[in-house]
Amino acid sequence: MNEVNTELKSWRGTPAKKAIQEFVATVTNTGGVSYVPPEERIAVFDNDGTLWCEKPAYSQLFFVIDRLKKMAEADPTLLDKPAYKAAYTDDMGFFATLYPDNMSMLAEIVYDTHAGMPQDEFEQMALDYLNNARHPRFDVPFKQCVYQPMLELLDYLRDHGFKVFITSAGGMSFMRTVSEEIYRTPRENVIGSNITFEFSREDGRVVLLRRPGLVQPMDDGPGKPVNIELHIGRKPIMAVGNANGDAEMLEYAQSNDGAVLCMLVHHDDDEREYAYDKGAEEVLQAAAKRSWTTISMKNDWRTMFTFQSS
Amino acid sequence: MNEVNTELKSWRGTPAKKAIQEFVATVTNTGGVSYVPPEERIAVFDNDGTLWCEKPAYSQLFFVIDRLKKMAEADPTLLDKPAYKAAYTDDMGFFATLYPDNMSMLAEIVYDTHAGMPQDEFEQMALDYLNNARHPRFDVPFKQCVYQPMLELLDYLRDHGFKVFITSAGGMSFMRTVSEEIYRTPRENVIGSNITFEFSREDGRVVLLRRPGLVQPMDDGPGKPVNIELHIGRKPIMAVGNANGDAEMLEYAQSNDGAVLCMLVHHDDDEREYAYDKGAEEVLQAAAKRSWTTISMKNDWRTMFTFQSS
Repeated sequence: MNEVNTELKSWRGTPAKKAIQEFVATVTNTGGVSYVPPEERIAVFDNDGTLWCEKPAYSQLFFVIDRLKKMAEADPTLLDKPAYKAAYTDDMGFFATLYPDNMSMLAEIVYDTHAGMPQDEFEQMALDYLNNARHPRFDVPFKQCVYQPMLELLDYLRDHGFKVFITSAGGMSFMRTVSEEIYRTPRENVIGSNITFEFSREDGRVVLLRRPGLVQPMDDGPGKPVNIELHIGRKPIMAVGNANGDAEMLEYAQSNDGAVLCMLVHHDDDEREYAYDKGAEEVLQAAAKRSWTTISMKNDWRTMFTFQSS
Repeated sequence: MNEVNTELKSWRGTPAKKAIQEFVATVTNTGGVSYVPPEERIAVFDNDGTLWCEKPAYSQLFFVIDRLKKMAEADPTLLDKPAYKAAYTDDMGFFATLYPDNMSMLAEIVYDTHAGMPQDEFEQMALDYLNNARHPRFDVPFKQCVYQPMLELLDYLRDHGFKVFITSAGGMSFMRTVSEEIYRTPRENVIGSNITFEFSREDGRVVLLRRPGLVQPMDDGPGKPVNIELHIGRKPIMAVGNANGDAEMLEYAQSNDGAVLCMLVHHDDDEREYAYDKGAEEVLQAAAKRSWTTISMKNDWRTMFTFQSS
């Protein structure tokens, strides 16, 4: 865990950094017309591709594939099912086609791999994976593939009285196992998609079992503002994302009456990370049309990952 | 709003107060075997009948009846429907039979009265009601019918590094309009039942519309632990309730391995509040069986309501 620093030192002195500093100065200026009291300083951040690396695939997808593989090793009859076979033979192409084109099969896989399991058992499994499995290119644990400038931004905001929430399209329980360690963000401030739970008892003790079926709505696209209202109950004054599924969240923040900061992380650095617009075509257009602040990873960030910072 | 005080001065020196003080001393004792770090000091409180008065009926029910009445005045053809007629003729007996015996009609009424409405409009309506409508017996606004000893307890816990959440079976959005003012508890720390939202746009701005249909599960009985996991992601170490619908929540907290405090508010003071066991028969039995700490409102509380405290 790196030291807390609130100087945004990994941000170059470009317009993106200035936009952040000016926005924060504006809403915290007690006498100003755009002053926002601390309880209303809500900032929401997408997770995959915004706070940490989402390529070559979501770390949660690697986690699920790892689980499919282990299940197939224990019970080879499972190899009759395409997903297990693809996992067993390291056929990443199979999984690449699932999101967002075949969500129902993706959901089925997620249920198959962890449904019926007590929640604390699932969490231990997720944590073990995130602690140990390594990113295929950077060769560090997935949980270390966090963008250093974003970690500094979270700290900077909290240092100025903001409440920071993570709004992931990915698994809420999955991310909560490491959110305190890697983002200094408490579990209850992580919103995401999740499968449902069933209240149950085992040996006289309460156990929450993971059940097939997603909590509605999934935390993506128009579901993000809905879940923000359900979990937070206030419209954010700052929203940061990187993909098409973040557009409605940024639009929602922008519908606030007062000062607002909407930012879009642009993956344009294939040397230090990855360069891609796929999955962000519409949100990049929306950013141009709505004057959202685009963050160029290549030009605006001095350091990329936390594991590279001094 | 009363001054913050963390001395529990409205609690008499009875076993209930001692149980609270000893529990808090135990889990905050840094060197002790039962020490709990601050991020895990989760305390959950039911709302109606635990933090504020729920008799002669839930304030939210009065709110709904008020709305039915206004709608019937504007459109007398609605008087053909039993609920509107009952509201118009002040027939409280009709509504008394709905919960918990006719939940589907109760749900229909709640949808009828506020579905299709933008969320911010609903919130303004709820806030206006809570600011102005008066309790029929105590003749103060409903929002002032808060138990002074409980307000002190919330402050006392926060002062010792606890995170306090409200877990209401009633409407989450309804309570959030006043939670900061009356409980010093931020909106995002209020969990409850709620109708669903739909993402929509009006004049180019994002609007969340209230839709018929409840977010599942309803925040009552076995739904309370499920929603605690969805909203907080951690098992509470302290849980306080007063009705049958709180039993699973207390049982859930008790399934923790370390030190735990489960408390049950017993309504036994018809002079200063109300005396009733109806709706609490099973949880009172569970409390005896499981050694939960019962709070006698009559014997353990020096002051009853915040509007009576000096």
